[in-house]
Amino acid sequence: MNAHFQRVDLKKAYRLLNHGPTVLVSAGHEGVDDVMAAAWACALDFDPPKLTVVLDKSTFTRGLVEASGWLAIQVPTAAQAQLVHRLGTRSLGSEPDKLASSGVVIERVDAYAPPLVQGCAAWLMCRVIAEPHNQQAYDLFIAEVVEAWADDRVFSDGHWQYERAPESLRSLHYVAGGHFYAIGEAVVVPVDA
Amino acid sequence: MNAHFQRVDLKKAYRLLNHGPTVLVSAGHEGVDDVMAAAWACALDFDPPKLTVVLDKSTFTRGLVEASGWLAIQVPTAAQAQLVHRLGTRSLGSEPDKLASSGVVIERVDAYAPPLVQGCAAWLMCRVIAEPHNQQAYDLFIAEVVEAWADDRVFSDGHWQYERAPESLRSLHYVAGGHFYAIGEAVVVPVDA
Repeated sequence: MNAHFQRVDLKKAYRLLNHGPTVLVSAGHEGVDDVMAAAWACALDFDPPKLTVVLDKSTFTRGLVEASGWLAIQVPTAAQAQLVHRLGTRSLGSEPDKLASSGVVIERVDAYAPPLVQGCAAWLMCRVIAEPHNQQAYDLFIAEVVEAWADDRVFSDGHWQYERAPESLRSLHYVAGGHFYAIGEAVVVPVDA
Repeated sequence: MNAHFQRVDLKKAYRLLNHGPTVLVSAGHEGVDDVMAAAWACALDFDPPKLTVVLDKSTFTRGLVEASGWLAIQVPTAAQAQLVHRLGTRSLGSEPDKLASSGVVIERVDAYAPPLVQGCAAWLMCRVIAEPHNQQAYDLFIAEVVEAWADDRVFSDGHWQYERAPESLRSLHYVAGGHFYAIGEAVVVPVDA
Protein backbone atom coordinates (compact mmCIF):
# COMPACT_ATOMS: atom_id res chain seq x y z
CA MET A 1 0.00 0.00 0.00
CA ASN A 2 1.09 3.58 -0.55
CA ALA A 3 1.76 6.40 1.90
CA HIS A 4 -1.95 7.33 1.97
CA PHE A 5 -2.84 3.97 3.62
CA GLN A 6 -3.39 5.08 7.21
CA ARG A 7 -4.85 3.37 10.27
CA VAL A 8 -8.37 4.44 11.36
CA ASP A 9 -9.29 4.60 15.06
CA LEU A 10 -11.55 1.58 15.66
CA LYS A 11 -14.10 3.80 17.41
CA LYS A 12 -14.57 5.62 14.09
CA ALA A 13 -14.50 2.52 11.89
CA TYR A 14 -18.31 2.37 11.61
CA ARG A 15 -18.19 5.65 9.71
CA LEU A 16 -16.41 3.94 6.84
CA LEU A 17 -19.69 2.09 6.13
CA ASN A 18 -22.26 4.44 7.62
CA HIS A 19 -23.13 6.06 4.28
CA GLY A 20 -23.98 2.70 2.72
CA PRO A 21 -21.32 2.14 0.04
CA THR A 22 -21.12 -0.94 -2.12
CA VAL A 23 -18.11 -2.93 -0.88
CA LEU A 24 -15.58 -5.52 -1.92
CA VAL A 25 -15.30 -8.64 0.25
CA SER A 26 -11.93 -10.44 0.33
CA ALA A 27 -11.03 -13.77 1.82
CA GLY A 28 -8.10 -16.14 1.62
CA HIS A 29 -7.38 -19.69 2.72
CA GLU A 30 -4.51 -22.09 2.07
CA GLY A 31 -3.08 -20.09 -0.81
CA VAL A 32 -6.39 -19.31 -2.53
CA ASP A 33 -7.66 -15.72 -2.55
CA ASP A 34 -10.93 -14.32 -3.82
CA VAL A 35 -12.65 -10.96 -3.89
CA MET A 36 -16.35 -10.35 -4.57
CA ALA A 37 -18.57 -7.29 -4.71
CA ALA A 38 -21.43 -6.88 -2.24
CA ALA A 39 -24.06 -4.17 -1.93
CA TRP A 40 -25.47 -5.71 1.23
CA ALA A 41 -22.94 -4.85 3.91
CA CYS A 42 -23.83 -2.70 6.90
CA ALA A 43 -22.46 -1.45 10.19
CA LEU A 44 -23.86 -3.32 13.21
CA ASP A 45 -22.13 -1.84 16.29
CA PHE A 46 -19.80 0.96 17.34
CA ASP A 47 -17.37 -0.38 19.92
CA PRO A 48 -16.10 -2.92 19.34
CA PRO A 49 -17.12 -2.27 15.74
CA LYS A 50 -19.13 -5.01 14.08
CA LEU A 51 -20.74 -5.33 10.69
CA THR A 52 -23.06 -7.58 8.72
CA VAL A 53 -22.56 -8.81 5.17
CA VAL A 54 -24.69 -11.08 3.00
CA LEU A 55 -22.70 -13.81 1.21
CA ASP A 56 -24.72 -16.03 -1.08
CA LYS A 57 -24.02 -19.76 -0.92
CA SER A 58 -23.09 -19.73 -4.61
CA THR A 59 -20.10 -17.44 -4.08
CA PHE A 60 -16.58 -18.88 -3.97
CA THR A 61 -15.56 -16.16 -1.52
CA ARG A 62 -18.02 -17.50 1.05
CA GLY A 63 -16.22 -20.83 1.18
CA LEU A 64 -12.95 -19.06 1.96
CA VAL A 65 -14.64 -16.98 4.65
CA GLU A 66 -16.07 -20.11 6.28
CA ALA A 67 -12.78 -22.00 6.06
CA SER A 68 -10.62 -19.20 7.45
CA GLY A 69 -13.03 -17.39 9.77
CA TRP A 70 -11.86 -14.05 8.38
CA LEU A 71 -12.93 -11.52 5.78
CA ALA A 72 -11.96 -8.02 4.71
CA ILE A 73 -14.54 -5.39 3.72
CA GLN A 74 -13.29 -2.64 1.45
CA VAL A 75 -14.81 0.58 0.12
CA PRO A 76 -13.98 0.84 -3.58
CA THR A 77 -13.86 4.11 -5.49
CA ALA A 78 -15.60 5.60 -8.53
CA ALA A 79 -12.40 4.93 -10.47
CA GLN A 80 -12.88 1.20 -9.73
CA ALA A 81 -16.48 0.88 -10.97
CA GLN A 82 -15.61 -1.48 -13.83
CA LEU A 83 -13.46 -3.62 -11.53
CA VAL A 84 -16.26 -3.78 -8.93
CA HIS A 85 -18.79 -4.87 -11.53
CA ARG A 86 -16.46 -7.58 -12.85
CA LEU A 87 -15.84 -8.88 -9.32
CA GLY A 88 -19.58 -9.00 -8.77
CA THR A 89 -20.38 -10.94 -11.93
CA ARG A 90 -17.46 -13.37 -12.32
CA SER A 91 -16.77 -16.38 -10.08
CA LEU A 92 -13.41 -17.83 -9.16
CA GLY A 93 -15.11 -21.24 -9.32
CA SER A 94 -15.48 -21.01 -13.10
CA GLU A 95 -12.80 -18.38 -13.88
CA PRO A 96 -9.54 -19.23 -12.12
CA ASP A 97 -7.94 -15.99 -13.35
CA LYS A 98 -10.85 -13.88 -12.08
CA LEU A 99 -8.74 -11.51 -10.01
CA ALA A 100 -6.16 -10.75 -12.68
CA SER A 101 -8.72 -10.51 -15.48
CA SER A 102 -10.84 -8.16 -13.36
CA GLY A 103 -7.87 -5.85 -12.87
CA VAL A 104 -7.45 -6.49 -9.14
CA VAL A 105 -4.08 -6.06 -7.45
CA ILE A 106 -4.04 -7.59 -3.98
CA GLU A 107 -1.64 -7.13 -1.14
CA ARG A 108 -1.24 -8.77 2.28
CA VAL A 109 -1.04 -6.80 5.51
CA ASP A 110 0.67 -8.49 8.45
CA ALA A 111 -0.40 -12.12 8.87
CA TYR A 112 -4.10 -11.66 8.13
CA ALA A 113 -5.68 -14.32 5.90
CA PRO A 114 -7.74 -11.97 3.67
CA PRO A 115 -5.87 -10.03 1.02
CA LEU A 116 -6.57 -6.32 0.58
CA VAL A 117 -7.35 -4.71 -2.78
CA GLN A 118 -5.12 -1.84 -3.82
CA GLY A 119 -6.76 1.43 -4.78
CA CYS A 120 -9.75 1.23 -2.43
CA ALA A 121 -10.65 4.13 -0.15
CA ALA A 122 -11.01 2.08 3.05
CA TRP A 123 -10.31 -1.41 4.37
CA LEU A 124 -11.81 -3.20 7.41
CA MET A 125 -10.18 -6.43 8.60
CA CYS A 126 -12.77 -8.63 10.29
CA ARG A 127 -13.01 -11.83 12.31
CA VAL A 128 -16.24 -13.74 11.70
CA ILE A 129 -18.48 -14.25 14.73
CA ALA A 130 -19.91 -17.71 14.13
CA GLU A 131 -23.70 -17.59 13.88
CA PRO A 132 -24.59 -20.77 11.99
CA HIS A 133 -28.36 -20.14 11.94
CA ASN A 134 -27.96 -16.70 10.33
CA GLN A 135 -25.41 -18.02 7.87
CA GLN A 136 -27.58 -20.94 6.80
CA ALA A 137 -31.04 -19.40 6.90
CA TYR A 138 -30.23 -15.89 5.64
CA ASP A 139 -26.68 -15.99 4.15
CA LEU A 140 -26.02 -13.35 6.80
CA PHE A 141 -22.54 -13.09 8.34
CA ILE A 142 -21.65 -11.06 11.42
CA ALA A 143 -18.04 -10.01 11.92
CA GLU A 144 -16.00 -7.90 14.31
CA VAL A 145 -13.68 -5.29 12.84
CA VAL A 146 -10.23 -5.80 14.38
CA GLU A 147 -8.28 -3.23 12.38
CA ALA A 148 -9.20 -0.54 9.83
CA TRP A 149 -7.40 1.72 7.41
CA ALA A 150 -8.35 4.41 4.94
CA ASP A 151 -6.79 6.51 2.20
CA ASP A 152 -6.08 9.72 4.07
CA ARG A 153 -6.85 11.81 1.00
CA VAL A 154 -10.53 10.90 1.35
CA PHE A 155 -10.98 9.87 5.02
CA SER A 156 -9.19 11.75 7.79
CA ASP A 157 -9.93 13.10 11.27
CA GLY A 158 -12.65 10.46 11.56
CA HIS A 159 -14.66 11.81 8.61
CA TRP A 160 -15.05 11.27 4.90
CA GLN A 161 -13.59 14.28 3.08
CA TYR A 162 -15.46 13.99 -0.20
CA GLU A 163 -15.78 17.78 -0.39
CA ARG A 164 -11.99 18.08 -0.74
CA ALA A 165 -10.92 14.76 -2.24
CA PRO A 166 -10.61 13.94 -5.94
CA GLU A 167 -13.91 12.85 -7.54
CA SER A 168 -12.25 9.58 -8.50
CA LEU A 169 -12.10 8.57 -4.80
CA ARG A 170 -15.86 8.84 -4.19
CA SER A 171 -17.69 5.77 -2.94
CA LEU A 172 -19.97 3.72 -5.21
CA HIS A 173 -23.59 2.81 -4.47
CA TYR A 174 -24.91 0.06 -6.71
CA VAL A 175 -28.47 -0.28 -7.99
CA ALA A 176 -28.57 -2.93 -10.73
CA GLY A 177 -27.51 -3.65 -14.30
CA GLY A 178 -24.13 -1.93 -14.18
CA HIS A 179 -25.75 1.19 -12.77
CA PHE A 180 -23.99 2.79 -9.79
CA TYR A 181 -24.24 6.21 -8.22
CA ALA A 182 -21.22 7.95 -6.73
CA ILE A 183 -21.72 9.61 -3.38
CA GLY A 184 -22.61 13.27 -3.90
CA GLU A 185 -22.67 16.62 -2.18
CA ALA A 186 -22.58 17.28 1.56
CA VAL A 187 -25.84 18.15 3.32
CA VAL A 188 -25.05 19.59 6.75
CA VAL A 189 -27.69 20.38 9.34
CA PRO A 190 -27.25 22.26 12.65
CA VAL A 191 -26.73 19.56 15.29
CA ASP A 192 -28.80 21.31 17.97
CA ALA A 193 -31.71 22.47 15.84
CA MET B 1 -50.19 10.45 0.05
CA ASN B 2 -50.16 12.33 -3.26
CA ALA B 3 -50.50 11.06 -6.83
CA HIS B 4 -46.77 10.28 -7.01
CA PHE B 5 -47.14 7.54 -4.35
CA GLN B 6 -47.02 4.41 -6.53
CA ARG B 7 -46.69 0.71 -5.75
CA VAL B 8 -43.28 -0.92 -6.45
CA ASP B 9 -43.07 -4.51 -7.72
CA LEU B 10 -41.86 -6.55 -4.73
CA LYS B 11 -39.19 -8.20 -6.90
CA LYS B 12 -37.61 -4.75 -7.31
CA ALA B 13 -38.11 -3.62 -3.72
CA TYR B 14 -34.49 -4.44 -2.76
CA ARG B 15 -33.37 -1.67 -5.12
CA LEU B 16 -34.97 0.91 -2.87
CA LEU B 17 -32.23 0.14 -0.30
CA ASN B 18 -29.45 -1.22 -2.49
CA HIS B 19 -27.56 2.07 -2.63
CA GLY B 20 -27.35 2.30 1.16
CA PRO B 21 -29.50 5.28 2.10
CA THR B 22 -30.11 6.41 5.65
CA VAL B 23 -33.71 5.50 6.46
CA LEU B 24 -36.62 6.37 8.72
CA VAL B 25 -38.14 3.53 10.77
CA SER B 26 -41.81 3.83 11.73
CA ALA B 27 -43.84 1.73 14.10
CA GLY B 28 -47.21 2.01 15.79
CA HIS B 29 -49.06 0.13 18.51
CA GLU B 30 -52.29 0.80 20.40
CA GLY B 31 -52.55 4.40 19.30
CA VAL B 32 -48.90 5.32 19.84
CA ASP B 33 -46.72 6.05 16.80
CA ASP B 34 -43.00 6.74 16.58
CA VAL B 35 -40.46 7.34 13.85
CA MET B 36 -36.69 7.16 14.24
CA ALA B 37 -33.74 7.60 11.89
CA ALA B 38 -31.39 4.69 11.19
CA ALA B 39 -28.24 4.49 9.10
CA TRP B 40 -27.95 0.76 9.67
CA ALA B 41 -30.60 -0.76 7.44
CA CYS B 42 -29.76 -3.10 4.59
CA ALA B 43 -31.33 -5.38 2.03
CA LEU B 44 -31.10 -9.09 2.94
CA ASP B 45 -32.91 -10.99 0.18
CA PHE B 46 -34.57 -10.50 -3.20
CA ASP B 47 -37.72 -12.60 -3.34
CA PRO B 48 -39.48 -12.48 -1.05
CA PRO B 49 -37.64 -9.27 -0.19
CA LYS B 50 -36.17 -9.10 3.29
CA LEU B 51 -34.10 -6.53 5.08
CA THR B 52 -32.15 -6.00 8.29
CA VAL B 53 -32.26 -2.98 10.56
CA VAL B 54 -30.45 -2.24 13.81
CA LEU B 55 -32.73 -0.87 16.55
CA ASP B 56 -30.98 0.03 19.79
CA LYS B 57 -32.67 -1.04 23.03
CA SER B 58 -32.83 2.62 24.10
CA THR B 59 -35.16 3.61 21.25
CA PHE B 60 -38.87 4.03 21.87
CA THR B 61 -39.58 2.86 18.33
CA ARG B 62 -38.11 -0.56 19.11
CA GLY B 63 -40.73 -1.17 21.77
CA LEU B 64 -43.50 -0.47 19.27
CA VAL B 65 -41.86 -2.80 16.73
CA GLU B 66 -41.65 -5.59 19.30
CA ALA B 67 -45.22 -5.07 20.48
CA SER B 68 -46.77 -4.94 17.01
CA GLY B 69 -44.44 -7.18 15.00
CA TRP B 70 -44.39 -4.59 12.21
CA LEU B 71 -42.19 -1.73 10.99
CA ALA B 72 -41.96 0.54 7.98
CA ILE B 73 -38.65 1.52 6.41
CA GLN B 74 -38.66 4.76 4.45
CA VAL B 75 -36.09 6.52 2.27
CA PRO B 76 -36.10 10.21 3.17
CA THR B 77 -34.96 12.96 0.82
CA ALA B 78 -32.36 15.71 0.86
CA ALA B 79 -35.18 18.16 1.55
CA GLN B 80 -35.88 16.25 4.80
CA ALA B 81 -32.34 16.32 6.23
CA GLN B 82 -33.24 18.46 9.21
CA LEU B 83 -36.29 16.30 9.95
CA VAL B 84 -34.18 13.13 9.72
CA HIS B 85 -31.60 14.50 12.12
CA ARG B 86 -34.27 15.53 14.61
CA LEU B 87 -35.88 12.07 14.45
CA GLY B 88 -32.46 10.53 15.08
CA THR B 89 -31.65 12.66 18.12
CA ARG B 90 -34.99 13.07 19.92
CA SER B 91 -36.87 10.32 21.77
CA LEU B 92 -40.61 9.94 22.16
CA GLY B 93 -39.87 8.62 25.64
CA SER B 94 -38.74 12.06 26.84
CA GLU B 95 -40.43 14.27 24.20
CA PRO B 96 -44.08 13.28 23.74
CA ASP B 97 -44.47 15.81 20.90
CA LYS B 98 -41.40 14.48 19.06
CA LEU B 99 -43.16 13.85 15.76
CA ALA B 100 -44.88 17.22 15.52
CA SER B 101 -41.86 19.17 16.76
CA SER B 102 -39.65 17.34 14.27
CA GLY B 103 -41.90 18.38 11.41
CA VAL B 104 -43.18 14.88 10.61
CA VAL B 105 -46.56 14.38 8.99
CA ILE B 106 -47.68 10.75 9.15
CA GLU B 107 -50.37 8.92 7.27
CA ARG B 108 -51.84 5.42 7.50
CA VAL B 109 -52.11 3.11 4.52
CA ASP B 110 -54.73 0.37 4.72
CA ALA B 111 -54.79 -1.38 8.09
CA TYR B 112 -51.04 -1.57 8.64
CA ALA B 113 -49.84 -0.74 12.15
CA PRO B 114 -46.82 1.43 11.20
CA PRO B 115 -47.58 4.95 9.96
CA LEU B 116 -45.83 6.27 6.86
CA VAL B 117 -44.00 9.61 6.71
CA GLN B 118 -45.14 12.02 4.02
CA GLY B 119 -42.52 13.41 1.68
CA CYS B 120 -40.21 10.40 1.60
CA ALA B 121 -39.01 8.92 -1.69
CA ALA B 122 -39.83 5.29 -0.85
CA TRP B 123 -41.69 3.23 1.73
CA LEU B 124 -41.33 -0.48 2.59
CA MET B 125 -43.98 -2.07 4.82
CA CYS B 126 -42.43 -4.98 6.74
CA ARG B 127 -43.45 -7.84 9.00
CA VAL B 128 -40.78 -8.71 11.58
CA ILE B 129 -39.41 -12.25 11.41
CA ALA B 130 -38.88 -13.11 15.07
CA GLU B 131 -35.23 -13.87 15.76
CA PRO B 132 -34.88 -13.33 19.51
CA HIS B 133 -31.14 -14.09 19.66
CA ASN B 134 -30.28 -11.49 17.00
CA GLN B 135 -32.58 -8.95 18.59
CA GLN B 136 -31.11 -9.40 22.07
CA ALA B 137 -27.44 -9.97 21.27
CA TYR B 138 -27.03 -7.56 18.36
CA ASP B 139 -30.12 -5.29 18.30
CA LEU B 140 -30.54 -6.75 14.81
CA PHE B 141 -34.05 -7.15 13.37
CA ILE B 142 -34.92 -9.13 10.26
CA ALA B 143 -38.14 -8.31 8.43
CA GLU B 144 -39.95 -9.32 5.27
CA VAL B 145 -41.17 -6.59 2.95
CA VAL B 146 -44.85 -7.20 2.23
CA GLU B 147 -45.61 -4.08 0.20
CA ALA B 148 -43.54 -1.22 -1.19
CA TRP B 149 -44.17 2.17 -2.75
CA ALA B 150 -42.07 4.97 -4.18
CA ASP B 151 -42.47 8.52 -5.43
CA ASP B 152 -42.62 7.95 -9.17
CA ARG B 153 -40.75 11.19 -9.86
CA VAL B 154 -37.59 9.59 -8.44
CA PHE B 155 -38.13 5.79 -8.70
CA SER B 156 -39.85 4.30 -11.73
CA ASP B 157 -39.46 1.31 -14.05
CA GLY B 158 -37.64 -0.46 -11.21
CA HIS B 159 -34.83 2.10 -11.04
CA TRP B 160 -33.90 5.24 -9.17
CA GLN B 161 -34.14 8.20 -11.56
CA TYR B 162 -31.81 10.62 -9.79
CA GLU B 163 -30.46 11.85 -13.12
CA ARG B 164 -33.91 13.24 -14.00
CA ALA B 165 -35.50 13.93 -10.62
CA PRO B 166 -35.32 17.17 -8.64
CA GLU B 167 -32.18 17.41 -6.45
CA SER B 168 -34.45 17.77 -3.43
CA LEU B 169 -35.56 14.12 -3.84
CA ARG B 170 -32.06 12.62 -3.59
CA SER B 171 -31.40 10.07 -0.86
CA LEU B 172 -29.36 10.94 2.25
CA HIS B 173 -26.33 9.02 3.50
CA TYR B 174 -25.39 9.90 7.07
CA VAL B 175 -21.89 10.02 8.49
CA ALA B 176 -21.98 11.72 11.92
CA GLY B 177 -22.49 15.07 13.64
CA GLY B 178 -25.26 16.36 11.38
CA HIS B 179 -23.16 15.57 8.32
CA PHE B 180 -24.94 13.77 5.47
CA TYR B 181 -24.10 13.28 1.84
CA ALA B 182 -26.77 13.26 -0.86
CA ILE B 183 -26.49 10.54 -3.48
CA GLY B 184 -24.53 11.84 -6.47
CA GLU B 185 -23.93 11.27 -10.14
CA ALA B 186 -24.53 8.05 -12.06
CA VAL B 187 -21.56 5.82 -12.86
CA VAL B 188 -22.58 3.32 -15.53
CA VAL B 189 -20.35 0.46 -16.68
CA PRO B 190 -20.91 -1.89 -19.64
CA VAL B 191 -22.62 -4.97 -18.23
CA ASP B 192 -20.70 -7.45 -20.37
CA ALA B 193 -17.20 -5.96 -20.07
